[in-house]
Amino acid sequence: MKALTVIPRTASSNELGDVPEPDEKEGAVLVETIAVGVCGTDMEIVRGDYGWAPPGHERLVLGHESLGRVLDAPAGSGLAKGDLVVGIVRRPDPVPCYSCAAGEWDTCRNGQYTEHGIKQLDGFMRERWRADPDAMVKVDPQLGELGVLLEPTTVVSKAWEEVERIGGRQTWQPKTALVVGAGPIGLLAALLGVERGLEVHVVDQMATGLKPDLVRALGATYHTGKLADALEGPDIVLECTGVPPLVFDAVATVGVGGVVCLTGVSPTGVELDVDAGSLARSMVLQNTAVVGSVNANARHYRAGADALARADHDWLARLVTRKVPIDRFSDAFEHGPDDVKIVIELAP
Amino acid sequence: MKALTVIPRTASSNELGDVPEPDEKEGAVLVETIAVGVCGTDMEIVRGDYGWAPPGHERLVLGHESLGRVLDAPAGSGLAKGDLVVGIVRRPDPVPCYSCAAGEWDTCRNGQYTEHGIKQLDGFMRERWRADPDAMVKVDPQLGELGVLLEPTTVVSKAWEEVERIGGRQTWQPKTALVVGAGPIGLLAALLGVERGLEVHVVDQMATGLKPDLVRALGATYHTGKLADALEGPDIVLECTGVPPLVFDAVATVGVGGVVCLTGVSPTGVELDVDAGSLARSMVLQNTAVVGSVNANARHYRAGADALARADHDWLARLVTRKVPIDRFSDAFEHGPDDVKIVIELAP
Repeated sequence: MKALTVIPRTASSNELGDVPEPDEKEGAVLVETIAVGVCGTDMEIVRGDYGWAPPGHERLVLGHESLGRVLDAPAGSGLAKGDLVVGIVRRPDPVPCYSCAAGEWDTCRNGQYTEHGIKQLDGFMRERWRADPDAMVKVDPQLGELGVLLEPTTVVSKAWEEVERIGGRQTWQPKTALVVGAGPIGLLAALLGVERGLEVHVVDQMATGLKPDLVRALGATYHTGKLADALEGPDIVLECTGVPPLVFDAVATVGVGGVVCLTGVSPTGVELDVDAGSLARSMVLQNTAVVGSVNANARHYRAGADALARADHDWLARLVTRKVPIDRFSDAFEHGPDDVKIVIELAP
Repeated sequence: MKALTVIPRTASSNELGDVPEPDEKEGAVLVETIAVGVCGTDMEIVRGDYGWAPPGHERLVLGHESLGRVLDAPAGSGLAKGDLVVGIVRRPDPVPCYSCAAGEWDTCRNGQYTEHGIKQLDGFMRERWRADPDAMVKVDPQLGELGVLLEPTTVVSKAWEEVERIGGRQTWQPKTALVVGAGPIGLLAALLGVERGLEVHVVDQMATGLKPDLVRALGATYHTGKLADALEGPDIVLECTGVPPLVFDAVATVGVGGVVCLTGVSPTGVELDVDAGSLARSMVLQNTAVVGSVNANARHYRAGADALARADHDWLARLVTRKVPIDRFSDAFEHGPDDVKIVIELAP
């Protein structure tokens, strides 16, 4: 069957090739891939900067933002032929740490987790895959192909859970949230903020176009320019770019008692001249909390699936700016200025 | 009566003078001051860098780390003549924000709080003071003059509460804590860490002397040199110096899923060259949380009083390295290399 594979840490090694059908050892449920989203981590892997092949393999099947259709599921699994499902990206180690043992592999303590399409587990950019029933989440059939947005939504449903649990360590009545970046993660973060009844502001670079339109269609406010000019002392800042100066600005901008959640994976080696004293002093005097957030566990998948089911499906559809057949996969790795989410289609 | 006062924002304006007896409007309980501790904030105020006088006053009575003896308390107040009490430093605004209304003035949202000896309320370096019963906390009479250590202990009992609430946002089984700095806050932070059954490590500069001895007497491990060399990937880092490069090292050193709590108030204008990309990236990929913590509410005073009551009183006594009569107050502002806590005595 067809699959898009790479040799991890080897630039431009991606190719559409032929791989064996998924082994029954991979899990009890057989899934046909409908579509797979492309994100920054995929770009990093394709550039040769990241990724690990499965043990004993040279190549890794790419793809972690999945949507599939169940072809075969065992009785009692809660799944039936035709169900739309999304594979959970990160899996606990066979000898799990205490976080993985508690089902919280997103905070794996020993680094021995695996990740479909990223770390030692083949991904979803292949015609069929297998996994056990507890390694996938059913999505609302009404969502159809928009279910491919679930994995990026889990990133923000986890981020929002972190914000709320940390903010709620004392009495907390947040009203405003600033989202930095209007890419897929930023826009989905804004969606979940609006769903929570918050006043949401989003900052990005483009003055006009799809991104400002999508922000306004949510009932949120769009800004360009400096974070501090967008909103004074927001209760929450969700940093969704990973651009180092913006990360530091996010911490400096958040209001008294606020929470900053970092979701963007920054490039290393970016040196900044920082007034470290003022930043640290204001964090202490204002009880600021900053938390990094990566990945998601089953709880975040369920919350993400609920958030998407509640959302305006027409708005969600506008996030998918291009659908590329797998035979033209290289087009999917070229990101235009108005692109939000690009999806590779296998069996739409 | 005698009082040590300053003109806020005027260097070297501190003087021992005469002030009126406390007004009954200040509160229903009359307290005789036994002793008052001196800390970095007092030094900052004496240098003319910080502080606000009460409205309509030129001078502010200094002192916020109090210990007193009740002289007179109303029936039903839960206090009786002779009780040892400590005044709560921060008070909510008369028109409180939602945090102050919930008794959590340590996270005041509008900045309209007041603080004895710091911000718009006279402090405790005077022979007698008054406050309402809910603005003071009784300490174990067994502690005697060591009750003066309660206020700095509340800073760390709040910090530990923050660490535990934030760490506990998911399953968490911390084993190790790294404390940066072996001043009064660092040593009390180490005490509370040992009381929690953690493996505690403390880093400071002095290779020998009282501070290493006090750390070892707790059953903790003392280190000099780089944080990363002291302990690999601690679950908790409590930063108790406010020295900007150490603050950034603390964040870089904490282990996967760890919590860093900043308690030291950094000087402003300290520019650092920081590999901001690597710092932000590792915070995200490791789910790191960093929280600034200042001040304390009544819950933290009660937790601090319990922690002191449980502690070895001989060990606590060694923290008070000098007791200075108020007539020689200026000696109290000269900090020697082996000084931990210097206390000004009024009515020992």
